[in-house]
Amino acid sequence: MTEQLAVAVLGAGGRMGAEAVKAVDAAEDLKLVAALGRGDSLDSLAGTGAQVVVDLTTPDSTEANVRFAVEHGMHAVVGTTGWDEQKRRNLDALLEAHPGTGVLIAPNFALGSVLASAFAAKAARYFESVEIIELHHPDKVDAPSGTAVRTAQLVAASREEAGVSASPDATTKSLDGARGADVEGVRVHSVRLRGLVAHQEVLLGGPGEQLTIRHDSFDRASFMPGVLLGVRAVASHPGLTYGLDGYLDLND
Amino acid sequence: MTEQLAVAVLGAGGRMGAEAVKAVDAAEDLKLVAALGRGDSLDSLAGTGAQVVVDLTTPDSTEANVRFAVEHGMHAVVGTTGWDEQKRRNLDALLEAHPGTGVLIAPNFALGSVLASAFAAKAARYFESVEIIELHHPDKVDAPSGTAVRTAQLVAASREEAGVSASPDATTKSLDGARGADVEGVRVHSVRLRGLVAHQEVLLGGPGEQLTIRHDSFDRASFMPGVLLGVRAVASHPGLTYGLDGYLDLND
Amino acid sequence: MTEQLAVAVLGAGGRMGAEAVKAVDAAEDLKLVAALGRGDSLDSLAGTGAQVVVDLTTPDSTEANVRFAVEHGMHAVVGTTGWDEQKRRNLDALLEAHPGTGVLIAPNFALGSVLASAFAAKAARYFESVEIIELHHPDKVDAPSGTAVRTAQLVAASREEAGVSASPDATTKSLDGARGADVEGVRVHSVRLRGLVAHQEVLLGGPGEQLTIRHDSFDRASFMPGVLLGVRAVASHPGLTYGLDGYLDLND
Amino acid sequence: MTEQLAVAVLGAGGRMGAEAVKAVDAAEDLKLVAALGRGDSLDSLAGTGAQVVVDLTTPDSTEANVRFAVEHGMHAVVGTTGWDEQKRRNLDALLEAHPGTGVLIAPNFALGSVLASAFAAKAARYFESVEIIELHHPDKVDAPSGTAVRTAQLVAASREEAGVSASPDATTKSLDGARGADVEGVRVHSVRLRGLVAHQEVLLGGPGEQLTIRHDSFDRASFMPGVLLGVRAVASHPGLTYGLDGYLDLND
Repeated sequence: MTEQLAVAVLGAGGRMGAEAVKAVDAAEDLKLVAALGRGDSLDSLAGTGAQVVVDLTTPDSTEANVRFAVEHGMHAVVGTTGWDEQKRRNLDALLEAHPGTGVLIAPNFALGSVLASAFAAKAARYFESVEIIELHHPDKVDAPSGTAVRTAQLVAASREEAGVSASPDATTKSLDGARGADVEGVRVHSVRLRGLVAHQEVLLGGPGEQLTIRHDSFDRASFMPGVLLGVRAVASHPGLTYGLDGYLDLND
Repeated sequence: MTEQLAVAVLGAGGRMGAEAVKAVDAAEDLKLVAALGRGDSLDSLAGTGAQVVVDLTTPDSTEANVRFAVEHGMHAVVGTTGWDEQKRRNLDALLEAHPGTGVLIAPNFALGSVLASAFAAKAARYFESVEIIELHHPDKVDAPSGTAVRTAQLVAASREEAGVSASPDATTKSLDGARGADVEGVRVHSVRLRGLVAHQEVLLGGPGEQLTIRHDSFDRASFMPGVLLGVRAVASHPGLTYGLDGYLDLND
Repeated sequence: MTEQLAVAVLGAGGRMGAEAVKAVDAAEDLKLVAALGRGDSLDSLAGTGAQVVVDLTTPDSTEANVRFAVEHGMHAVVGTTGWDEQKRRNLDALLEAHPGTGVLIAPNFALGSVLASAFAAKAARYFESVEIIELHHPDKVDAPSGTAVRTAQLVAASREEAGVSASPDATTKSLDGARGADVEGVRVHSVRLRGLVAHQEVLLGGPGEQLTIRHDSFDRASFMPGVLLGVRAVASHPGLTYGLDGYLDLND
Repeated sequence: MTEQLAVAVLGAGGRMGAEAVKAVDAAEDLKLVAALGRGDSLDSLAGTGAQVVVDLTTPDSTEANVRFAVEHGMHAVVGTTGWDEQKRRNLDALLEAHPGTGVLIAPNFALGSVLASAFAAKAARYFESVEIIELHHPDKVDAPSGTAVRTAQLVAASREEAGVSASPDATTKSLDGARGADVEGVRVHSVRLRGLVAHQEVLLGGPGEQLTIRHDSFDRASFMPGVLLGVRAVASHPGLTYGLDGYLDLND
């Protein structure tokens, strides 16, 4: 039998953290060596033999956690928000001093969502028209969703790079809001419907054809395959990687 | 063999009229006895033995055509626009003097579209949330489409009658237009995409479930089954019927 | 304030029953007066003043429960399986002796699913082609789903009544199974996919157009609006009603 | 103004060829220098100055056409079927003797379809379950479609390479055909519906999430953007390229 990878989960008392504890525990090739909650001292990590630390904590503690891990020779997989450019630059500098250590920071661990955005960006340059529809439960306070805004930005950047014109639109007579929000030239429509969780459709159209890339997120469980993929791959990706797509094999 | 029904098509030179001529010609139970274009005199209808007149002409001639038909004891199936309330009242009065004669005026002959609107209105009272997405080719000048506005109005009326609250929406932070147009309290989103023809989705959501009613119109041919259904049924529906749904058996 | 309706839930220890207890408790117009689990005596119902009994128990106890309710002047809303024709005839006879009392037995309380089946049956006679796709999680042992089989039967019956021909199909060269299962002449395709719950699509096609009626069930919560609708309406539907559609206003 | 690329179309009398003639004519950067139909001699190509030859002819003439083009220093873009392995090997050998000349042979020129297949293959290794639904008009004689079979093969190869297990399936009780056809372990479902043209959906599912990649082909026009992309790019891709995806930028 191959040796198991030793994993510690930080933020184990939170909803995502608790899911991660279960997922690591259930994976045959992984061994859960520590599950720390709010108030547990980082020092207790030191003796656990953890090779990979999963950080699902809070924006005010994640930076110290990752620094501690790197300084103790542990790789880190991070799903906590708050990693702005300045913090990532600081981490880059720290990792230069620890050349064999890898850190993955991912704003989104849902494989399907990451793939959908990547595919939409690749395809966007080959179609005359692109629009995005995102659909969520009605308790969501922001519209469009952050994921839809980021997808629109990736689509816009891909089209600009390829010199593609704006999507055609002959609308001259419109009710306010009918044509959606304009995110860097890409129309985004936000549906709010009881019963839904989180869903997104990128629609690409050319003469006589349509390509649709849709992602449905039904459950928080959807993040775990991405977390585990990160845990297994982080040791072979030294340095800082931002975004799970850096670990996906999209280029063969 | 059963006797064929004798049918005359007015507006046979137009695109819809030409389709109707072909469709009547191809139907075994129908016999095309006249196909009149712009400039042909109505008087030539009189000797044809037409039992049903299909009017696919223009707003400025349709009223005279239908009056002529009714006065000559012919039923009429009308797809021409321009029949406002005043004109329909006048026609009602005329039909009272011709009690055995039927006229069907339909703003939409696509069976799927008529059924989709009827189903959406019926279902709307049973769900917390309803929104509409319509998708068309990018050369369309108005947004939302007329069909989407009418569907939203039917949905709103059905919910009001049943005392259903507005669809919930916690949005507090939104880009302009993201949440669509507001048509009598129903959100309507208009997508414009090269390659599309005319499509509409009504999304209804409740706790843990979603009902979606979608209609795709790929081709003008989609109107012909509705026209033929009207031709076959008009004799058994004396008086004026407005809307093809009046001929559909939705109530068993 | 209007008076609350007094409701008792039987089978309160089961998953559906526990959901019903919560749903009744949360409804302002309903008052939970009893929640009985396995082993609790029916006699304890007698003094509760319950006007409506919700039975979400087991096939071997549901008949005695409903009989007890009817004999004590309580209406009943039943989601338990096992009510074959013989049992329903017996219940009919009992209800004749209690003319003011109503019982609703529903094999499916998801409003969207019930509406989707009803709409599909109504529409089926107006289209050349109809096929059904049902999609479920991969732990399901039967294919097609019971709901898909029932929907196909309703569709087939509606088409036969209207004298519609079989859906056209020119297939002469096919891999085994490609064209799905044949349920009374209607093709049914069963998809099994990790992440899904229970979903069904009825596709209806005619020249140049398609009508799609899709239902997604994401969560057991989807049954509660139907249960509450039954609870509120059962008193005004004396006698036995089989199927929630009998309470839905599909015929205006 | 940049110089126009000189293009000849072979098979200009066929449906695809006629579309290509129109598309080349309408493109500002391309110049149509010849449009040859059945019976026109290839020799007339020699004096036209054509830089790229588009072959949309028949399996029995395409090989001679391409050979003629290559021997006269013209690049070729080929949409004709019949290029089996042996013929491609012969062409490879010829192209070695003409090192600057490029030939693109593409079984499918619809960009959306080619992208959909490529994305499905890339994504297939990251999901527990994959199934394919293809939907066509009911006059099609084969099921599943050739495109669906190829997509299933790509998906199967990608999963095998990554060591992914078969999609889970607990079905023990099934009507014949319900679970679709088995193409190298991937389930494929074929829907036939009046009104449809050619459509395909790849469904990928993991815990709590679904990724759907759908392509709709509404019209033969959908092939032209791919043909033009080939015409513009063939000169910079010397040698033989099989499949339009070889020209798409999927790897950034």
